[in-house]
Amino acid sequence: MREEEKYTNPEEQLLYLQKRLDEEDTVALSELFTELDILSIARTLESFPTKTRDRLWEYIPEELLGEVLAEVDEDIRADYIEGLSASDLEQIVKGLDAQEVAEVLDVADEEIKTSVYASLDQEIRAQVENLHAYEDDVVGRYMDPETVNVKQGVSLEAVQRYIRIHHLLDDESQQIMITDKDKRLLGTLTLIDLIKQPQESIVDEHMDPPYTLNDQMKVSEAAALLRSKELPFVPVCDSDGLLVGQLNAADVLEITQDDADMTFKHMSGVSDEEEVFTPILRSAKSRGVWLGINLLTAFLAAFVIGQFEEVLDQIVALAILMPVVASMGGIAGSQTLTVVIRGLALGQLAGNNKQWLYNKELWVGMSNGLVWALVVGFISYLWFSDPLITLVITLAIFVNMSLANVSGVLIPLVLKRFQIDPALSGAVILTTVTDVVGFLSFLGLATLIIL
Amino acid sequence: MREEEKYTNPEEQLLYLQKRLDEEDTVALSELFTELDILSIARTLESFPTKTRDRLWEYIPEELLGEVLAEVDEDIRADYIEGLSASDLEQIVKGLDAQEVAEVLDVADEEIKTSVYASLDQEIRAQVENLHAYEDDVVGRYMDPETVNVKQGVSLEAVQRYIRIHHLLDDESQQIMITDKDKRLLGTLTLIDLIKQPQESIVDEHMDPPYTLNDQMKVSEAAALLRSKELPFVPVCDSDGLLVGQLNAADVLEITQDDADMTFKHMSGVSDEEEVFTPILRSAKSRGVWLGINLLTAFLAAFVIGQFEEVLDQIVALAILMPVVASMGGIAGSQTLTVVIRGLALGQLAGNNKQWLYNKELWVGMSNGLVWALVVGFISYLWFSDPLITLVITLAIFVNMSLANVSGVLIPLVLKRFQIDPALSGAVILTTVTDVVGFLSFLGLATLIIL
Repeated sequence: MREEEKYTNPEEQLLYLQKRLDEEDTVALSELFTELDILSIARTLESFPTKTRDRLWEYIPEELLGEVLAEVDEDIRADYIEGLSASDLEQIVKGLDAQEVAEVLDVADEEIKTSVYASLDQEIRAQVENLHAYEDDVVGRYMDPETVNVKQGVSLEAVQRYIRIHHLLDDESQQIMITDKDKRLLGTLTLIDLIKQPQESIVDEHMDPPYTLNDQMKVSEAAALLRSKELPFVPVCDSDGLLVGQLNAADVLEITQDDADMTFKHMSGVSDEEEVFTPILRSAKSRGVWLGINLLTAFLAAFVIGQFEEVLDQIVALAILMPVVASMGGIAGSQTLTVVIRGLALGQLAGNNKQWLYNKELWVGMSNGLVWALVVGFISYLWFSDPLITLVITLAIFVNMSLANVSGVLIPLVLKRFQIDPALSGAVILTTVTDVVGFLSFLGLATLIIL
Repeated sequence: MREEEKYTNPEEQLLYLQKRLDEEDTVALSELFTELDILSIARTLESFPTKTRDRLWEYIPEELLGEVLAEVDEDIRADYIEGLSASDLEQIVKGLDAQEVAEVLDVADEEIKTSVYASLDQEIRAQVENLHAYEDDVVGRYMDPETVNVKQGVSLEAVQRYIRIHHLLDDESQQIMITDKDKRLLGTLTLIDLIKQPQESIVDEHMDPPYTLNDQMKVSEAAALLRSKELPFVPVCDSDGLLVGQLNAADVLEITQDDADMTFKHMSGVSDEEEVFTPILRSAKSRGVWLGINLLTAFLAAFVIGQFEEVLDQIVALAILMPVVASMGGIAGSQTLTVVIRGLALGQLAGNNKQWLYNKELWVGMSNGLVWALVVGFISYLWFSDPLITLVITLAIFVNMSLANVSGVLIPLVLKRFQIDPALSGAVILTTVTDVVGFLSFLGLATLIIL
């Protein structure tokens, strides 16, 4: 097997792995896992159902197990760690850096955690305890506590020598921190400048002014910030202004990826944690909740229709056309909702932009409403040759589509004001509105005009 | 205004800017734009409707205009460039690197493009023409053609000296390329190793084996690959194996961000290009297409209902309950669709995983179908006290939800086989299926059982 084959296409790699598993070719499997990097192993584990995954763990080289464990999805990590003793885990976290140890121990029982703590190298242990002291959703919890710090007034040459003598700079370091004697950050120096600038000049001449994050900042906000400013890393300071670590883009990437992913899932009523290979029972349960909520709104719509039994009983064409009204409103509204949720995520909606957007969506809703109301009216006339039904459905589509767009703006803005994730409940509230308004206007107008 | 104020919160920055615009405080505006970095300026421009944006351009310092233009959304760039003469544009692209010039000229008229080409520095011009020679969707089009190349057998010390003498290493370089005399890539050396390893040792000892991309690879595939492997950059080679440039993570980030964004928008029938501040007419038009497609499927559903006029005419309760059947199927199906589309994007679905997933979704669909069918049946019995209607809706919900989940797996897999984006058409096809199956099973069973 050529090296290329395993790397260029995740799907082909998966197929190759499946074949070797089917043939129980343990030699090829061990060989494959020796050649793969940590990230590829983690992604591979995530691409199999639980049973197969349990077989795969055995082929992972022992010395990589800790790093793989730190890298895989939290669910999978918890599943694997559940079966381990304290001494197994002590073995696994040996050699990991503080960030990785913190990640792995996060899902362990308190008892095991305490025992593993005791086995750690003192410096790492202090760092891990420090990371664990932070809340789950703040920057401090996700930062790398190890940074390369130098004092003011030092020459670049001296910095380079200092790095070589003390074996500093791990794979994640990308900048040098220039601090005063209290560990207050004065500036940062890129590795690029460290190399390209005259070696006898001092760090002060080349340092960039420090742009820092507070360790108590919400990590999702920090992630969005790093992403929008395309920063590879940012120094982290505590509330006294002292340097405590750095937040790396690699970790940030994962978080924003997760955020986008969450929005995408929430819009369709899927929970954050659900992946393709989530076991049947867990999937069924988590989706069931959403189905239940939807059922309430569906019965609300049914209840509205129920109020118009009389007119439905007389004109069966109304029952036939009902879904068209609801469906056009639903689509128009969710188009608006999608654009607005994205605008909110990008922080583009503030002040009089909101008013502008409201007006825009009203006009888009009314103009599209008018066009499609006429189209639907025309088709309905061809179908039922009834001018009153035609009038009723034309008006109803226009009303529902115009209101749908306005709701698509107002619902997420109101939800955000109340600190509710608009992606999670926006879609279901919107559908409720467009269904209720749709049926109410259609059947209500029919009662008024036709009966 | 404190520096912090502008940076920590995009929304507050927006509000500040709006106030200064309302007050026509040109001094504060000029000052703000002098302090902002390129990315912040670009994001700010994207956060305003066209009219306001046209006012903002004037406050951007002239020397930043080119970089800002290279950074903003393509739509906005095209709008701005439309009004410029060839000599304006020549002024603007002066000092930009090849990647940026290529980006800016991409949206210009052929005539203006030729004239600006002629004004460029010869080296940059050759690079730009080279970039423009690539198709729009391949790696070669997005790579940075400038890399730092050194020969084998050179000491680290010599490499550092070479970089300083020739002023190499721009902000985007992160590695040194080690090539043979034909520019064939032998390996890469990280800046970290260049600094931390013994300076008298030669590059060969520390270089990593080259992992390269072909310049003709689809850029979206490359982006997904870089992202999944968390690589900051990858060298790019042509089909002869010669080094032609490097693809940077920063550019890749944008592309995968755009991809996720596209999936999100496509699922709701919004086109890629639409943003919050897309003008009314353009929004209305692009959404109109999707509404038209939806109308076809809505009328298909109406047509199915129309086949059951007789039973609807006799039992009005059916018309009332119809939306419940369609809605539960629709939600169940789109939950599955979301999970599957995400699995496809991550490359997790290959070989017998597909079979596993199909079985899983069938079971999830049937178990949730059973639970919610019973709940709906119970509520319907309380409402209409009619055992036959109860039986019909219970069966219909079970059938529709089970089939919805199976369709949620099959539809995206089939679409992918035909190279159609499952996010774009998956949702509309799925809704058609769940509507048609829902109405067919509900009204069909009613005809069979009740009539």
